[in-house]
Amino acid sequence: MANTKAYAATSPSSGLGPYAFDRRELRADDVAIDIDYCGVCHTDIHFVENDWGVTEYPVVPGHEIVGRVTAVGPEVKDYKVGDLVGVGCMVDSCRTCSACEAGLEQYCLEGMTGTYNGEDRHDGSITFGGYSTSVVVSDRFVVRIPENLDPATAAPILCAGITTYSPLRHYGVSKGHKVGVIGMGGLGHMGVKFAKALGAEVTIFTRSESKVAEAKKQGADHVVISTDEKQMEAVAESFDFMLDTVPVQHDLNPYLNCLKFDGTHILVGLLEPIEPALQAGQLVFKRRVLAGSLIGGMPETQEVLNFCAEHGITCDIEMLDMKNINEAYERMKRGDVKYRFVIDMNTLKES
Amino acid sequence: MANTKAYAATSPSSGLGPYAFDRRELRADDVAIDIDYCGVCHTDIHFVENDWGVTEYPVVPGHEIVGRVTAVGPEVKDYKVGDLVGVGCMVDSCRTCSACEAGLEQYCLEGMTGTYNGEDRHDGSITFGGYSTSVVVSDRFVVRIPENLDPATAAPILCAGITTYSPLRHYGVSKGHKVGVIGMGGLGHMGVKFAKALGAEVTIFTRSESKVAEAKKQGADHVVISTDEKQMEAVAESFDFMLDTVPVQHDLNPYLNCLKFDGTHILVGLLEPIEPALQAGQLVFKRRVLAGSLIGGMPETQEVLNFCAEHGITCDIEMLDMKNINEAYERMKRGDVKYRFVIDMNTLKES
Repeated sequence: MANTKAYAATSPSSGLGPYAFDRRELRADDVAIDIDYCGVCHTDIHFVENDWGVTEYPVVPGHEIVGRVTAVGPEVKDYKVGDLVGVGCMVDSCRTCSACEAGLEQYCLEGMTGTYNGEDRHDGSITFGGYSTSVVVSDRFVVRIPENLDPATAAPILCAGITTYSPLRHYGVSKGHKVGVIGMGGLGHMGVKFAKALGAEVTIFTRSESKVAEAKKQGADHVVISTDEKQMEAVAESFDFMLDTVPVQHDLNPYLNCLKFDGTHILVGLLEPIEPALQAGQLVFKRRVLAGSLIGGMPETQEVLNFCAEHGITCDIEMLDMKNINEAYERMKRGDVKYRFVIDMNTLKES
Repeated sequence: MANTKAYAATSPSSGLGPYAFDRRELRADDVAIDIDYCGVCHTDIHFVENDWGVTEYPVVPGHEIVGRVTAVGPEVKDYKVGDLVGVGCMVDSCRTCSACEAGLEQYCLEGMTGTYNGEDRHDGSITFGGYSTSVVVSDRFVVRIPENLDPATAAPILCAGITTYSPLRHYGVSKGHKVGVIGMGGLGHMGVKFAKALGAEVTIFTRSESKVAEAKKQGADHVVISTDEKQMEAVAESFDFMLDTVPVQHDLNPYLNCLKFDGTHILVGLLEPIEPALQAGQLVFKRRVLAGSLIGGMPETQEVLNFCAEHGITCDIEMLDMKNINEAYERMKRGDVKYRFVIDMNTLKES
């Protein structure tokens, strides 16, 4: 393993000690949750392996959490014991800045508190995520899972789902728009479902001919092989939006060229720095926009869950036993998952 | 001179031959204009010196043209002989695409026809610009100069002015917004005037302490020395918009960092490629936007002239004799002009 310290913290057989289970006493606004499912995000791997140099070990990853309420603090009004609820990428923020007041806590001017590897705003402890049997979270950062959504497939909506839904809504994607989705992983396949449900005509951009059938199965109206210059030229200046879910460095210029004038390229992956260099002319000559977007705020996280329930949208998942997490990471690094691993957390409870 | 062929075409003493004066016979929608003033844009130098490899020699630059109507074609209704009119960066477009129908001819899907070095859509000839005694232009691409604007100082509004006005209007800059203007040249100083007139609080970013007094004189509320890291840190996350008028490569990341969440960095200069590389996180973590903008459409070119007349806005100019154009180019390359050279075209007529 690349980093045994990190993997140890996520493995029930590693002498985990107090970390995952020593949840805090309930504060007045807290909700205690018995976790049923937790999605596995590529970000988890980055933290486990300290790719960004900010990991505080031991780390307990997991920010696509679904479970049942087991207890609530005295000030909690919206949730009661037994409710099916979710927790996404954040568990706190300042709550008073302009971003928080707008329900966009992910852009909190003081910085949001991450679900794991964050610093608790009250006691300074490090937050632990959803690869665990339980979690305690302030009610503002808890969402309700509609009862007609399958709880396991709903889990990835809390990160992969909201990350793609939020910018599509923010930019007003609707009927009549042509949307390109770049990348067909956990985020990309959700982006396709949302863009279709919002009424757009959707094209998947993929590097591989072998993914065409799968792309169509996902609901794409069209597929473009991005490595085929002729196909790329044929769709030049034809899209209103490009939703770019590719999490590694890639050349944005050929995709910008696919946008109409006034078109918007939305980055949700952290491919920094942007190389090869962006051609300024791709923006200037067509009044195009390169935009970034980060997950979504709490009101819109509830909204996307309701939207999924209404439109019958779920994430395509592969269920995972906790003991197989390291193997799952290796498969994710190879892009070998359709489209999201979800840990059945009962396999941790039973171990 | 770097390129005698090019300079020759703009100099009355160089045996110019038929080029500048051999204007076409009037078509039905044409307006013939006796040129009084023509602004000098840095783009002129790029074409004269073939920096972009697309120059068709001989080139007659100039796309900030003001003069009086001397004749009109039979279908021209809006202009009559003696009217004070202007011509900017375009003289034609397809007129039927979605961009043209929206009055955004600069983004014509077939490509606009440039005022010089463009290809005439009727006869395929190369267009000649405003370093000339006269020009003939289709009425759709002619604007009216309000009579209370000084004609010489109005000329640069047709490029430097509209280029900065258009994005400020497109993005709805108004009272309550904080706007940073990067660069204090021909475009930058116009951007400051427009942003102030639209009600914004305006900060000029300049590299040099020596320009602070001048920046204040231009109406800036604040000045930030962009090479001073402490000053840059002090304004982090505080601007709604950054209007970036710098026409050469520079690091965008420190400026993006000055934008609030949801802030917009507007590029109007062609600094391509964008290097050092853009940090994707600067966009993603704050939902910021990097946008491009190119001059403006014909309706908004008329609008900006009316706006200038209403608000008493003119371009700060230095008047130039035609015979001194080469010297002016050398001074522009050194940034030694406040803020735009305008050729008094009578000095060409008299020579």
